[in-house]
Parts: sequence; C-alpha cells; structure tokens
Amino acid sequence: MNYDILIHNATIVTVNPAFDIIESGWVGIRADRLAGIGPAAGNGPIPPAGEIIDAHGGIVMPGLINTHTHLPMTIFRGLADDLPLLEWLNEIIFPAETAHIDSETVFLGALLGCAESMLSGTTTCCDGYFFEDAVARAVQEAGMRAVLGHGVIDFPAPGVPDPSTNVRYAMIFAEKWANRSPLILPSIFCHSPYTCSALTLKNAKDAARAGDLLFQIHVAETSQERNRIQADGGVSPVEHLDGLGVLDGRTLLVHAVWIGDEDIQRIAGCGAAVSHNPESNMKLASGIAPIPELIKAGVCVGLGTDGCASNNDLDLLREMDMAAKLHKVNLFDPTVMDARKVVEMATIDGAKAIGLDTAVGSLEIGKQADVVILDSGRPHLVPMYHPASHIVYAAVGSDVKDVIVAGKVVVRNGSLQTLDVDALMRRVNTLALDIRGENKKGGLCT
Amino acid sequence: MNYDILIHNATIVTVNPAFDIIESGWVGIRADRLAGIGPAAGNGPIPPAGEIIDAHGGIVMPGLINTHTHLPMTIFRGLADDLPLLEWLNEIIFPAETAHIDSETVFLGALLGCAESMLSGTTTCCDGYFFEDAVARAVQEAGMRAVLGHGVIDFPAPGVPDPSTNVRYAMIFAEKWANRSPLILPSIFCHSPYTCSALTLKNAKDAARAGDLLFQIHVAETSQERNRIQADGGVSPVEHLDGLGVLDGRTLLVHAVWIGDEDIQRIAGCGAAVSHNPESNMKLASGIAPIPELIKAGVCVGLGTDGCASNNDLDLLREMDMAAKLHKVNLFDPTVMDARKVVEMATIDGAKAIGLDTAVGSLEIGKQADVVILDSGRPHLVPMYHPASHIVYAAVGSDVKDVIVAGKVVVRNGSLQTLDVDALMRRVNTLALDIRGENKKGGLCT
Repeated sequence: MNYDILIHNATIVTVNPAFDIIESGWVGIRADRLAGIGPAAGNGPIPPAGEIIDAHGGIVMPGLINTHTHLPMTIFRGLADDLPLLEWLNEIIFPAETAHIDSETVFLGALLGCAESMLSGTTTCCDGYFFEDAVARAVQEAGMRAVLGHGVIDFPAPGVPDPSTNVRYAMIFAEKWANRSPLILPSIFCHSPYTCSALTLKNAKDAARAGDLLFQIHVAETSQERNRIQADGGVSPVEHLDGLGVLDGRTLLVHAVWIGDEDIQRIAGCGAAVSHNPESNMKLASGIAPIPELIKAGVCVGLGTDGCASNNDLDLLREMDMAAKLHKVNLFDPTVMDARKVVEMATIDGAKAIGLDTAVGSLEIGKQADVVILDSGRPHLVPMYHPASHIVYAAVGSDVKDVIVAGKVVVRNGSLQTLDVDALMRRVNTLALDIRGENKKGGLCT
Repeated sequence: MNYDILIHNATIVTVNPAFDIIESGWVGIRADRLAGIGPAAGNGPIPPAGEIIDAHGGIVMPGLINTHTHLPMTIFRGLADDLPLLEWLNEIIFPAETAHIDSETVFLGALLGCAESMLSGTTTCCDGYFFEDAVARAVQEAGMRAVLGHGVIDFPAPGVPDPSTNVRYAMIFAEKWANRSPLILPSIFCHSPYTCSALTLKNAKDAARAGDLLFQIHVAETSQERNRIQADGGVSPVEHLDGLGVLDGRTLLVHAVWIGDEDIQRIAGCGAAVSHNPESNMKLASGIAPIPELIKAGVCVGLGTDGCASNNDLDLLREMDMAAKLHKVNLFDPTVMDARKVVEMATIDGAKAIGLDTAVGSLEIGKQADVVILDSGRPHLVPMYHPASHIVYAAVGSDVKDVIVAGKVVVRNGSLQTLDVDALMRRVNTLALDIRGENKKGGLCT
C-alpha cells in the first residue's frame, strides 16, 4: 500500500484524545489525507511512498491553528508600541488604516502574514479584517487553510463607506467564498459589542446561522469596554451578547479578558468557544483572561496571536510559551496550563473552536494531512526528555523545518514553496516607506 | 586607517547614553576593540578593513548580557515541568543533580549552554553553579565572556561534600581564574539567604570585597522564602542581607520578587543591582518582581534567563519580549518597560549590574568589540519601522546571524565557529539517556 508522502524517523506528537506520543514513528499521507501512522518496526523496511521525508528524530505534530489574526496588519508591525491604548489606536493605528488600507495593501500584507504563519508552523488561521476578499485571495495563493470573515462595524470602514450595508457586504464575501476553495471557509466577523449595535449583531448572527458560518467577535477585551456596556445596559458584554441570542456553539469569543464567573458559566452553557491572545492582551495592558477557569468550566479555548500591530509577530509557538507561563504566575500555580493542554489549545482545541476539528487539529487517520516537522537538532532543543515540553517551552517558529497543508508540502527545509518571499518582503518594505511618509512619490498606495 | 573587521550596510543600535540609532552605518573593529562607528557617507567608499561583513540592512547591536545563568543545567532542559515547586525541586531536580553532576557533565552542559547562548546573541553571561571550574573551562573553550562564581551553600553540595569549606572552595576557584583569561572574571555566588547562614554570608562577602569580586545571590524568589526569613528574624530577606553588610555596589540580587517598598529604597540606597528573570519566575509561579518600581527608584536592573530547568531556554531576545509584556499587563500600563529600556536592560544595564559597563554593553569607540548582527530580512521582521521594537517584540535568538566577542567572530552566518555543535549535541543526548535511566551501561556519568 503506497503513500504519496511518508515522514519517518520522527517523534510523533499525535494530539489524539489519548495524547499518544510515538517516540520513533512514521506518518503516511495519501492525497490530502493522513492514511497511516505507526511506530517504526525495529530496523525493518519503512512503508513505500512517492516521497520520503526523513525527520531526523525531529518532532512531527499537527499543523498549528491560529484562532485569531488580522493578517494584513503585518504592514503595521512595530509602527508604534508602548503607548496608552487610545493614543495608539486613535493617533497611530486608525489613521494608518484610513490612509493605507485598500485591496492591494491588504493583499500584500496578508501574503506576508501567510508567509510568516506558514514558516512558523501555522497551517490554519481564523482571520477577520476589511477587504477580506483580498485576504482570501492571498490565503489561496499561499496555500494555507483559513476561516475568514469580512469585518462588520457600525462606522464607515475601509471598503464599506456606508455602515448600513455592513452585514450585506459581509454576506456577499461569505457567499463568494462558500465553495471556491477546499481550504477556505467563510465566516462572519463582527468587530465588538461596543462598535456594533444590537440590531447589527442580531442580523449578523442570523446571517451566520442561515449559512452555518462561524460567528467571530472581539468581546470584553478591556475594562473600558466592560464598564461602558455595563453602564449602557446594566449587563456584562457576554450577558449582552447572550441576550441578543448571539452565543451558541458556532460563536468564537475573542479575548474574553474582562469576564466574571457568571459569564464563564454562560459561555460554557451555550457552547461558545474562546480565542485566547495572551501576547496582545499583555502588550496592550488589557488584562489576563481567566483561561484556566474557562477550561475548568468546560469551555473550548484556542490560541491566537492577534494582528501584528499588537504582538508583534504571528508565531504560535512563542504564544504557547507565553500562555503557559502567564497563567502559572498569575495564579501562583505552576501546575496550571501544563504542556499537554497548551499543545492541545494550539491544535485540536483551536480546531474545535473554529469548527474544524473533524478535519484538522490532530494526527489521526482520515483527517486532513496538515503536518508540521520541528527540527529538534538544535542546541536549544537538546536534550529532549518530553516533546510536548519542548514544543511549549523551548521551540520557536524558526525551528519549523517542513509544513504540509492538505497533503501538499508548503514549507520545505525552512523555505516557503508557494510564494517568492524575498520579492514579497521587498514589496512590503516599499509600502512601509509610504506608511512612514518617506516615499513622497506614492507607490503601491495610490 | 585600517580596521581588522568592518561591518557595514547596517542599522546600528548603539545603546550609547543617547540611545543613538544609525539607520545606515558601519562599525569598525581593531584587535579586540571598537575603533570606529559612523553613518554611511552617501555612496562613497567604505573604510578599508581586513574583513568586511555586509549586514544586508540588518540590525547591529551590542552583544547581549545574560545576568543570571546556571549554564550546566542545559542537561536537565525539560526534564520536568508543570509540577508544584517543592515536588519539582525535591523529587526531580535535586536528585538529578545528586546523581548526574560531576566535573565532566558540568563541562558538557556548560559547553551546550555556551553554544545556545552565543548562537542567540549572548556575548556575556553571569553564571553560578557547582564544579564552576568546569564551567570556566567550557566558557573559555567556547570563547564567550563571563563572570563566574562557584556556588556557596550550607549543605553538602556536588563537589563540596563538607559545607564548612564552601567559602574557601569558592575562593580557590576565584583565585585560580583571577588572571587566567581576558574574558573570564571570577565572582562569589552564595545560593540564598535561606540556604546560607549569616556567618557564611558575611565571610563570603568579606572574601568578595577583598578580591573586588561581584557577589551574586538569589534573594526573595518565593513567598515561602520571604515568610521563612520574616518568621526567623522579623526582617525581610533584603533587610536581612543589609543587616549583614552584604549589600553594596558590587552585589547582584537575583530575582527580588518578594520585596516591598522599603526593600526597594534599601537596594537603591546601597547601590546593589538586580537580575530580573521573568520567564523562570513565571514558569515556577514564583511571582512578578516589581521591576518598574525598582527602575524608578534608580536601581540598575539587568535581564537573566536563569537555568534551563526553569525556562527552558537561554534566549535573551525572548526574555526581553516577556519582560516588556509581563509588566505592562501586571500594571495595566502599556507605557512601562518600553522597548528602549528593555534593550538597555539586556545590554548596558546588564553590563553595569555585573560590573562590566566600562568594557561592554554598548557600541562605543574604545569598548570591547562584543557585537551582534540580527538578520532583519525575514518575514517576521518585515517591515522595520523601529529597530528597538523589533529587537524586543519580534526577534528571537535564531535571527542572530553573526556574533563577535572581543573582536573575534564566534558565530558566522548562524554557525558557531568555536565548537563542534553537532558532536556536542550527540554527547549531551547520550548523557540524557543516563539521566532518563535508559542507559543502563552507564556512560558519561561514571
């Protein structure tokens, strides 16, 4: 029985329900699916395959799932840091978006975001932004898997000057991408409960329900947001959304920092999932989401990086380390967020949070072949007693050697196969001159 | 005027007192010193040099200073995580040290620690462990700069079975290495105020004073330690040390997590420095040191990784990101620990904390040529608006391309020039089989 691709000489972290780890094993891929996984049979022959990849003892694991990105924001990476939140937003980020966001710059920024993501082991992301059609084209060109939503906000927005059309605009995007690519699933992305009216939220969720689409929303990111919604309606942001009928098993709550015990029970009760973005919440000084408490209550929590303006990278391996350590010190308990749970958050739990757990998130026969190989032959990964520990506490994105999405090798030996990364970086650097105001001739941003 | 080495086509982050950044510049090295720094003169010729290194627009910065390491503990990297502190220490780490620490394994682990450190941009570390003579030999072979102290503790310790000889043993080490290598400075390392008696601390500090040596000590790492010292003597750990006359400008207080306002004023008043190890403090759930408050009080604070059993890496670029983000979220203030301050902590402030700021820590003419070149031509570092932001929030150790220590290129294009890293990793992997108990034949640990 032949495989198209066989990865061998590998430590396989399956992330199956038993979290089985095969210390010396192989993974066989046929077409776009995982077709065989097993331990090496002594010194016997390895199964035949069209292509054989020697992992050289490295870690083979499911592709990482980034449950919250704004891919195009790579173009604003490090544009401003260390500022008070409102100054950062109102004086830097919003003006930069107003001046520089169009379908061309969004496409370019999303391509760079895909390149960075895939090179650091992410095979699926869940994204929301404006000009999302350009994001979808970029994701398709890059060969990454994604759940994508066009931003809904009750203000004039890039590409959607009339807010009364925002839900319709988001649905046009969703319909266009409904069956266009096997790797892309459209969704609905409402910005937040403080920037979308009750009517907008209800209409958007109705539209999502009609199309069985994931409904993503930032919620309870800052104390200011929580206080404002509490002052306006006497309820918490989560309660507000629940009252509108927005919370169910197809809802992804992003951030969920300022939530109380009742909110946690409410989220658990309705089956909504949470996207945890610790680095962004830390850098913007938003607060620490009660993730161990959410997990204890049975809520499915995935990891996300957020956009590059507030992180400033898309490296999920670094995010895992941050998530594990942050909650330990916050609760004075080194046993919370153990390595296994954090690996699950970045893979199978993230997949479940965005509705893709039957397809991806673990290495199990029949699932899509989204696979990452980490090179463990580097000084900072030697010795290796427990591969899950290394994934969480020692590895970074640049330790990713090979990445496979739907059976296709998209990163080979650290090199992206689907895009010309050097040309892409040159184009973004040219755009950055515009954003800095140093390229008076205009250029890409006309 | 010829240079031995000229680095050009670089964005130079000098970390001089004005924190000058030269967007397109060069650095000239003669023998072991920085002999010239300047902006590129249009398209004019670059200064002549024996060797010319093109930084390709990358960031050139001072070598990083890791103010707290236990280099040999690389051999225990990831041996156990996510356990209660006392279980982790008493059931895993201490038994592993008792069973596997000797001069040979310490030498091997320290070599790996040097390799990892140098490959990730560290040019100086401040280390304390047992069999420190083996650490010194490893550091010398690797070509790194270091301040090294042999551990003093009032229990039978590896290599020092009789605790009554501990200070004498530490002084023998210090005397042996006093003038042996231009890159190595001996120091005195007392383990902590709860494992060293008042007499031991006084004797050790007297010995350090006599030799003008840095005195390093873990202090106020956990609430348990603080409570125990408070219960025993009615004073805080810092007050206890101050009462013994241990605190002065040649004292480095490691961790300093459980300190109050009076302790901060006391540390500031006596001129002692602090080594901040956020990742270790987070992973062990020890707590969050009041670093912004210490800095505000005028205390010099350097960054450290701690050993690989509690981090689990020696990557100071990652530690910088963690330090910047942790204090922002802890104080709900995104303006604290800005990128410039964090870069200074990992360079000039760290150098000052260990008494080396006249020699290293910044790129200034006349100083030792300890230089790091970061490759900024990678997707996660594009575009670049502010180099200090990239150093703190986006770069990781594997972005280090070249490293120079005292005018000698020790890492070239990501490859360590001074050690056979592959052979070293093989030897550590063999040792790890012993530590796991899977190599029944013995092996290195005989």
